[in-house]
Amino acid sequence: MKEFVEDFGAVVRQLREDKGWSQDQLAERADLNRSYVGEVERGRVIPSIVTARKLADAVGINMVGLLLRCEQLEQSRLARRIRLDAFAC
Amino acid sequence: MKEFVEDFGAVVRQLREDKGWSQDQLAERADLNRSYVGEVERGRVIPSIVTARKLADAVGINMVGLLLRCEQLEQSRLARRIRLDAFAC
Repeated sequence: MKEFVEDFGAVVRQLREDKGWSQDQLAERADLNRSYVGEVERGRVIPSIVTARKLADAVGINMVGLLLRCEQLEQSRLARRIRLDAFAC
Repeated sequence: MKEFVEDFGAVVRQLREDKGWSQDQLAERADLNRSYVGEVERGRVIPSIVTARKLADAVGINMVGLLLRCEQLEQSRLARRIRLDAFAC
């Protein structure tokens, strides 16, 4: 589950950076604390589904789209791991 | 956000009932407390994304599928509200 939380944070950071926003700007639009947004992006805290929804709304994506990106990140990490395992054999 | 949390709970309940499982059975498979699962289903607590993921995994659906169902529920509620508003005009 740690990787899922880290993926979630990485996706939030990517979406924020795509907008060219600072953490402060995202926090303000999502009605969240700036340092909390930083912790979410680093995968240091486990956000609630409401926090996730606030972040999704703030960057103009729906929850399905947000989770789809997390899933894509997970799939690409798994694929990379399989390739590395194959290389090690 | 209250409705989102309630929709989430309703979807979890529906998925559990589709499996013919008790709250106890779902709680055990998701490694969660039974009474907590009950609270989630009633929309009384706000689960974390990890709890959501555990529930999704337990019923054999991915997070995208789970959130898609929440979104469908939200859309149908909004459509119903629009029809009622139109009727009231």
